[in-house]
Amino acid sequence: MSSSPLLSELIEALRCLPGVGAKTAQRMAFHMLERDRNGARRLAERLAVAVERIGNCARCRTFSEEAVCALCASQTRDRSLLCVVETPIDQLAIEQATGYRGQYFVLLGRLSPLDGMGPRELGLDLLAQRLAEGEVHELIVATNPTVEGEATAHMLAQLAHAAGVRASRLAHGVPLGGELEFIDRGTLAHAFGGRQAL
Amino acid sequence: MSSSPLLSELIEALRCLPGVGAKTAQRMAFHMLERDRNGARRLAERLAVAVERIGNCARCRTFSEEAVCALCASQTRDRSLLCVVETPIDQLAIEQATGYRGQYFVLLGRLSPLDGMGPRELGLDLLAQRLAEGEVHELIVATNPTVEGEATAHMLAQLAHAAGVRASRLAHGVPLGGELEFIDRGTLAHAFGGRQAL
Repeated sequence: MSSSPLLSELIEALRCLPGVGAKTAQRMAFHMLERDRNGARRLAERLAVAVERIGNCARCRTFSEEAVCALCASQTRDRSLLCVVETPIDQLAIEQATGYRGQYFVLLGRLSPLDGMGPRELGLDLLAQRLAEGEVHELIVATNPTVEGEATAHMLAQLAHAAGVRASRLAHGVPLGGELEFIDRGTLAHAFGGRQAL
Repeated sequence: MSSSPLLSELIEALRCLPGVGAKTAQRMAFHMLERDRNGARRLAERLAVAVERIGNCARCRTFSEEAVCALCASQTRDRSLLCVVETPIDQLAIEQATGYRGQYFVLLGRLSPLDGMGPRELGLDLLAQRLAEGEVHELIVATNPTVEGEATAHMLAQLAHAAGVRASRLAHGVPLGGELEFIDRGTLAHAFGGRQAL
């Protein structure tokens, strides 16, 4: 295909990135070789190090190169609040957007028996153990508002109730800046049903 | 930002890829760590090898890990035809789309004095030398139909004429599957002026 076998191999390897097809991979490879070899060298190094050293936190399961992540080890975070998210990306989104100062638990997925994601895969035994410790007073369920996310939320609520811990769920409704006209029916019905006093 | 410094560094490094912003870089990093560590490992290796070993062909300037690329070294390509393109991507596009069996010369840019791209940067001395060898009978100019590409084409034509070599240019006109209604005026005027006998 190309006049350089190494280049063809690089283009093929770039396709492991999500959303990158043949054309984009070509463009990326040529761009790096022509204009940004230092960036490419740095990317290669950091990728190798990240894959080698990043594992999961033993306490909250998020990505971490330490046995227990900095956030779990922190003495300044409120240990009575535990927010459950599906992925480390969701955790990052909450950290960046809100002033939440509690701790997290990352499911690394959502309940989906067909994909082999059950309570064990989501680390719910670890979560039950954490709740049994007695430090947590509120479990904030921040799974996505999808069918699987809702099923997961339901199971998490049961888990919390069994441990005598209060469970809460992120509010659903009209997003800021959204226009009623363009919002899907489910969201609108939810927002209407959950209307609050002015 | 994230609970893992190595992860933050990886996300930052991914932004050297063209068209990849902060959100996409996050998504790529999480995807690789969560679902495709083997792919990430392979990408890191191939990237490192490519940056280290891929240079430019001494004859046509395309990317190659050999001193002279396979295409230039090939005995089965017609040495009387030389196609000049701006980038290795353009070369690949012509290889994939056409049945062209001649050789190439890659400018690695286009004439653009403001960006410091002059005749020297485009390797025109190397091209003049190649034409002077006497093997080439036709110089096929396949620069892009932009202002800079046209200026480059003009200069290439002068170079060819000076060496007594015939120069030709890719045909401009209505693209296949295009509708006249939606084609820009310049292209339409070109296609009209260059109409051919039926």
